[in-house]
Amino acid sequence: MKARVTVTLKNGVLDPQGKAIEGALKSLGVDGISGVRQGKVFDIELETGDKAKAEEALKAACEKLLANTVIENYRVEIA
Amino acid sequence: MKARVTVTLKNGVLDPQGKAIEGALKSLGVDGISGVRQGKVFDIELETGDKAKAEEALKAACEKLLANTVIENYRVEIA
Repeated sequence: MKARVTVTLKNGVLDPQGKAIEGALKSLGVDGISGVRQGKVFDIELETGDKAKAEEALKAACEKLLANTVIENYRVEIA
Repeated sequence: MKARVTVTLKNGVLDPQGKAIEGALKSLGVDGISGVRQGKVFDIELETGDKAKAEEALKAACEKLLANTVIENYRVEIA
């Protein structure tokens, strides 16, 4: 079973990395971009075939390691 | 106009970061995970309202900066 976890910064949290990317794109001549925020994506392969169990394991993974829930949101999609 | 760009490693490219996450999850007691591959996600705000123009700018951004097309794939989703 495959799943994708997307971790993004919460609204209001400063993203200097995104700002740097925005600046770099401007200086490379890519126009029309007014904001960039960077996040992370994890493609996870699970042993179980049970969707509920998979969801539980992924939630635990996010809370314990993948996301800093003080400043980040996460979203779990099971394929 | 908002868009999301997802950059993931191509199949066959080693991902030591993903392997480290997999090991860390095991040692944290999260069971049932047999593989992790990490990628990046960019939430991009565009000035234009024209979808074709937006797509063109995003493709340029990916090719020039966001993705290393030798080892990475990218996917553009316009919301």
